Amino acid sequence: MLSVEQACEIILKVIEPASGEVVPLVEANELVLTEEVRSDADSPPFDKALMDGYAVRSADCHEGIREFQIAGEVLAGQAPDRPVAKGSAVRIMTGAPIPPAADCVIPFERSRDLGNGRVVLEVERAKSGGNLARRGESLRRGDLVVAPGALLGPAQIGALAEMGKAAVCVIPRPLVAVLATGDELVPADAIPGPGQIRNSNEVMLTAQCRQAGASPVPLGIARDSRDELRTAILQGFAADFLCLSGGVSAGQRDLVPSVLADLGAENLFHGCDVKPGKPIWFGRLPAQRAPDSRPHWIFGLPGNPVSSMVCFELFVRTAIRRRRGIVPALPTLVHAVLTKSHVSTDSRPTFFPAAVTLTSDGFQATPLNWKGSFDLQSTAGANALIRFSEPREFAAGEQVSVLPLGRSVGGV
Amino acid sequence: MLSVEQACEIILKVIEPASGEVVPLVEANELVLTEEVRSDADSPPFDKALMDGYAVRSADCHEGIREFQIAGEVLAGQAPDRPVAKGSAVRIMTGAPIPPAADCVIPFERSRDLGNGRVVLEVERAKSGGNLARRGESLRRGDLVVAPGALLGPAQIGALAEMGKAAVCVIPRPLVAVLATGDELVPADAIPGPGQIRNSNEVMLTAQCRQAGASPVPLGIARDSRDELRTAILQGFAADFLCLSGGVSAGQRDLVPSVLADLGAENLFHGCDVKPGKPIWFGRLPAQRAPDSRPHWIFGLPGNPVSSMVCFELFVRTAIRRRRGIVPALPTLVHAVLTKSHVSTDSRPTFFPAAVTLTSDGFQATPLNWKGSFDLQSTAGANALIRFSEPREFAAGEQVSVLPLGRSVGGV
Repeated sequence: MLSVEQACEIILKVIEPASGEVVPLVEANELVLTEEVRSDADSPPFDKALMDGYAVRSADCHEGIREFQIAGEVLAGQAPDRPVAKGSAVRIMTGAPIPPAADCVIPFERSRDLGNGRVVLEVERAKSGGNLARRGESLRRGDLVVAPGALLGPAQIGALAEMGKAAVCVIPRPLVAVLATGDELVPADAIPGPGQIRNSNEVMLTAQCRQAGASPVPLGIARDSRDELRTAILQGFAADFLCLSGGVSAGQRDLVPSVLADLGAENLFHGCDVKPGKPIWFGRLPAQRAPDSRPHWIFGLPGNPVSSMVCFELFVRTAIRRRRGIVPALPTLVHAVLTKSHVSTDSRPTFFPAAVTLTSDGFQATPLNWKGSFDLQSTAGANALIRFSEPREFAAGEQVSVLPLGRSVGGV
Repeated sequence: MLSVEQACEIILKVIEPASGEVVPLVEANELVLTEEVRSDADSPPFDKALMDGYAVRSADCHEGIREFQIAGEVLAGQAPDRPVAKGSAVRIMTGAPIPPAADCVIPFERSRDLGNGRVVLEVERAKSGGNLARRGESLRRGDLVVAPGALLGPAQIGALAEMGKAAVCVIPRPLVAVLATGDELVPADAIPGPGQIRNSNEVMLTAQCRQAGASPVPLGIARDSRDELRTAILQGFAADFLCLSGGVSAGQRDLVPSVLADLGAENLFHGCDVKPGKPIWFGRLPAQRAPDSRPHWIFGLPGNPVSSMVCFELFVRTAIRRRRGIVPALPTLVHAVLTKSHVSTDSRPTFFPAAVTLTSDGFQATPLNWKGSFDLQSTAGANALIRFSEPREFAAGEQVSVLPLGRSVGGV
C-alpha cells in the first residue's frame, strides 16, 4: 500500500500550478505572483525628509554656524527648486523633498525659533544624509520588486503599490466542491432518526478549504444511489477539485469509485498506509473527458469525520497548495517534545490529535484522549496531529513530528 | 515616553471584546464562540460499525465457531431491531448501527463467503467492542462540546454540526476603516508628479486587516486640509476602528490629532518608545459623542510605510484581537537564533525586518538589509520582525525575540 509520502508525490506529479490572472492589487493578498515586477522609478523618488525640522547644508554646521536665517518652508507634496543658501535653513515636513544644496535635516526638537525669522539649531550631531532618505536608497529604477512565485503578504502588496502596480497577475483561489455522501446523513439542523447522524463533514471541510486558501462550493448530501451521486458529481465538476466524503470503503454501498469511473474519472490511488484515512481515493477527470475541457481532481475521503479531516490536511491541502503555486506544497511537520508517554498500537503511521504549545524550549505536544476516527469531539481540542510512525510506546520527553492544524500553533 | 508594553496595556484596558451575534455555523470559522454548547445527544448516537464486515457475537467467536449463517444486512442509515442469533453473522457497512446482541465486527478482509448463505470468519482477533464505536463513547448527552471563548476551527465547526448547532453565537469581525492622509499622496495607479509618492499604505493596511481577521473599509486619501480630514474621519466613524496613516508627527500640517479632538475624540496616548513608529497616536470616540452611540477607537499611524506596518502589527492587531475576544490579544514573540551579527544603533527598542526560518534546531532569524522607516522595499522580503531591545552589537548565535508577520513562519 502507498505511504503518505508516495501518495503526496502522485498528487504533486499530476497537478500543476494554475495559470495567473490579473486581479486588483487589493485582492492579491495571500496569492502567488506569476509575473516579475520591476520598479518603474527610484524609491524614494527624491531625497526625502524623514523628520519634521530644518533642512540645512551639513557643511555650514561643520563650520560652526549655529544661528540660521529661516528661508521658507517645504511641505510634503511640494517640489522645492530654490537651493538653500549658506547660513539658511528651510522648514521641512516629514515626507517632503529636500531642497537643492541641503543635505541634512535638524529636527524641531533640536531647534529654538528666535521669532525674528532666525532659528538656533543644535548642529553637533548634524551629518550629510542625516534624517533624510536619498533618492533610490531603497530601490533603483529597474530593480526587482517582487519575484514570480512569491506568496504576497501586506508588505509585498505595499511595495507593489509604491511601484504603481494597481493590478497584478496572481494564481486565483481554486474552487473546491464539497459533497457528503451516505444514506445515514441528515443536515446539521435536523434531528437524526434511528441510525442517522448529522452531516458534520460538509461544514468542517468547507472551513478547511477556506483555511487552505481555496473557495469552497458546498453541494449538500448525496444518498447512496448511483443517480443521485452522478448528478451531484457532475455538479462538482464545475469546480477545480471535488472532495467527496464517504462511500469509498469496500462496502457494497460504496458507490463513489464506480460512479466516478462511469463518468470518465481515472483512479490514481485508492488506499494509503495511514491511520485514520486508509480507504482514501484520489483520481482525476482528464481535460478531454471534462464538460469544460479542463482537468479536475477528485478526492474520495473516508466518511468518518476525523478520517476526512486528516486526509484533507495531508492530501487535499497539498493539492490546493500545489495548484496555488505555494512552495513547499507538502505538509510541513515540526519537531515537538512529548509531554507524556503514549502507546501507538496500529502498524500504520498514525496522525494523532494533539494539543501543541510553543514554549521557550520549543514545541511541546500532548496527545489527546482520542478514541478513533469517529471521535471528532475529542479532536475539537486539537491544534495539531502527532505522527507516530510505528507501533510502540513513545516516552515522555521523546521528540516527535507534528503537523500543525491551521495557524493555531505558537500564535503564528 | 510609553513603552510598547504600556501602550498595549492601555489598548487592552479601553477595549472590550464585542458582543456575540448568531451566525450560520459555516460562517463561524476563525471566530470566537460566546456561548456554551453542550451535546444534545450521545455521540455516536448508537453502537456503530467502524468497518465493512460482519456483525457477530464475540462470545460465539470465543466458543470456537468459525462458520456463520449470514442473517441479513444492515446499511448505514438503517435501524436494525432483530437481535443476532447465536452462530449468525449480519453483513454490516461502516457507519451502520450494530444490531442487538452483536458486539463485534469482523471485517470483510477476514471473511470467506461460501456462497450458500454461510461465511467463514477469522475469529482469532475478535473481541467485544472490536471495530465498533459504542454509543456515547465520544461524548455523552449534556457533555460540553465547545466552551465559550474558544476560537473555532474546522474540527470545532464539525463537532458543533454533529451536535445540531447549525447557527452559533460568535463575535463578528470588526470593521476597520483605513484612511491615508497627506498632500504628497497619489493613488497607486497614478504617475506621481514632483514631490509626490503613491499611496502604498492603504492596500498594505487593508491586507493587514484581513490577515488579523477584521473587515477593512478603505476610505482613500485625505489631503492635509481640516475639511477633507473632518469629512473622511466622520465616514470612518461608521467602522469600529479608524486607522489613519500620516499627519501625526510634530509638523504644522500634522492636523490629524487636532481634527480628531474637534470631533470629540479623546487622546489616550501619543508617542511610544519604539522604532519605527514613535509618533503613533491612539484614542477613542466615547459612545456618548458618537453618531451611532457606540464607542470607536482611532489609531493615527505614522505615514512612513514601515512605521505604519509595524505599528499595525504591535498595536492595531492587538486591538483587533482584543475586540474579537482572542486570548492572548498581545503579540506573541518567539525565540530565535541570530544567523549573523547585527548592530542596533537606536536607543529605542527596534523592530527590525527579518527573514525567519524554522529548522529542527528551532527558529533562525536573519536581519534584512533594511534602511529605515521609508524602506518598504527591503521589508517586502520579511516574514518577521526581530526585537532589538538596546543599542549594542548582537552576536551571531545570540537568542533574540521575534514577532512573526502573518502566518508565514514555519509554514504554520
